[in-house]
Amino acid sequence: MPRQITSFSNETVKRLRALRDKKARKADGLFLAEGLRILAEARDSGRLPEIVAYAPAGGVHPLAAEIIAAAEAEGADVIETTADILAKMSGKDNPQAILGAYRQPDTSLASIDRTASPLWIVAQALRDPGNIGTILRTGDATAAGGLILLDDSADPYSVEAVRASMGAIFTQAVVTARWDEFLAWLRSGPGQLVGTSLNTDSDYLAAEYQQPCFLLIGNESQGLPASYEAECDLLVKMPMLGKADSLNAAIAAAVMAFHVRASWRR
Amino acid sequence: MPRQITSFSNETVKRLRALRDKKARKADGLFLAEGLRILAEARDSGRLPEIVAYAPAGGVHPLAAEIIAAAEAEGADVIETTADILAKMSGKDNPQAILGAYRQPDTSLASIDRTASPLWIVAQALRDPGNIGTILRTGDATAAGGLILLDDSADPYSVEAVRASMGAIFTQAVVTARWDEFLAWLRSGPGQLVGTSLNTDSDYLAAEYQQPCFLLIGNESQGLPASYEAECDLLVKMPMLGKADSLNAAIAAAVMAFHVRASWRR
Repeated sequence: MPRQITSFSNETVKRLRALRDKKARKADGLFLAEGLRILAEARDSGRLPEIVAYAPAGGVHPLAAEIIAAAEAEGADVIETTADILAKMSGKDNPQAILGAYRQPDTSLASIDRTASPLWIVAQALRDPGNIGTILRTGDATAAGGLILLDDSADPYSVEAVRASMGAIFTQAVVTARWDEFLAWLRSGPGQLVGTSLNTDSDYLAAEYQQPCFLLIGNESQGLPASYEAECDLLVKMPMLGKADSLNAAIAAAVMAFHVRASWRR
Repeated sequence: MPRQITSFSNETVKRLRALRDKKARKADGLFLAEGLRILAEARDSGRLPEIVAYAPAGGVHPLAAEIIAAAEAEGADVIETTADILAKMSGKDNPQAILGAYRQPDTSLASIDRTASPLWIVAQALRDPGNIGTILRTGDATAAGGLILLDDSADPYSVEAVRASMGAIFTQAVVTARWDEFLAWLRSGPGQLVGTSLNTDSDYLAAEYQQPCFLLIGNESQGLPASYEAECDLLVKMPMLGKADSLNAAIAAAVMAFHVRASWRR
């Protein structure tokens, strides 16, 4: 049965609220996802929350009730609370009516099977959690295997990244690794490492993409380090027709991922 | 000569700070752009600020000095101030060392010439200023003529949109219009209206794009209204290979814009 909680100082409320902080997420091993759409995506991907909090104002959506019952059957802590307390936990004035705390999965390179998809997205030192979430969403749309985050990146399990992923945090594998670890792993099996760069004349439309293809996207402000470009099997240029010389990192990832998929369909 | 201002209660400081608010921007007619990179993009596009504020801590960058001198020669109000006051104006803890307030240009449909580019991006009721800025940046990269914002959209001159545009707010035309106004204008001359939709079997890779092409992108959460889709000359579908059924609006705009450009190069 759900516990009724109406106090901001309740320990579980404090625990959920703390998950907005990266250190607390790391220590606890959980992360927050908000909203029925994302919780349903999680359930469809075989994932249930360990803690669920919801505000029953005006009744509980039948799909929410299903997810709550399924989570409870697996031993989840289920909390019925108020919109105010949900707002406190999510940090939003108009919170979703339900949120869940999920176990962070293993993010080691050993946890993924590169043959699971012909396409993987690799990003280096992304700073913006919104970009990480958007790239996960694009990864889902292009049936990438997942996102490999290199070096010192924003946390893919932050509230902002999970929100921008629109549920893809549950459908895409997420890996974090240092560049040298990644390179050793990559070279231990098949895989074409493709970097986007201005330092090449090779047009992204003319290039041949092999499977599995690992698309390497650089940091938002610096792009790829020269030493990373040097390790790529293929460098391609996306033509910049205007005055700017760069794209948003999530945009570059998407244009490349859709194009690589398109090149395999022709 | 620059005025030295070190008081938070100075009238110009208050005026600049107020530009973070949409109503104040509308009343004043100015908008804020921050950072040397964006101010340089503006200058290269023939635009100078009416007010410039900078913090000379550790010296003024030669390019900043050039822009300041050029603005001053045009009668701009130039303010030398502190990093703390710049932080207050930009709303960021680590502000850029320079910011400018620019006149908002005419955003009517009458202000643009559709023959100026074969490609235009049209977006309906975008809510996220970051998406607007990102689409402007993509518009620059694909040499679109500009961005036409339909209906009740976030403000393209907000600090967040200008920042995400990385200067493209100065290189792309920006239009705001109601749908019925836009449609009447569109049909008064040449132009193919292309909508992205799940309600079609026409693959975006197989379609023929005519010039000028107007790419119509729907609102972040609802997509395009059915009545808008009905007016399109062409509806195309981008295949969704994963579990999700939608893309981020800025991602959809970019994949389409790059693909349309690519289709004309072949």
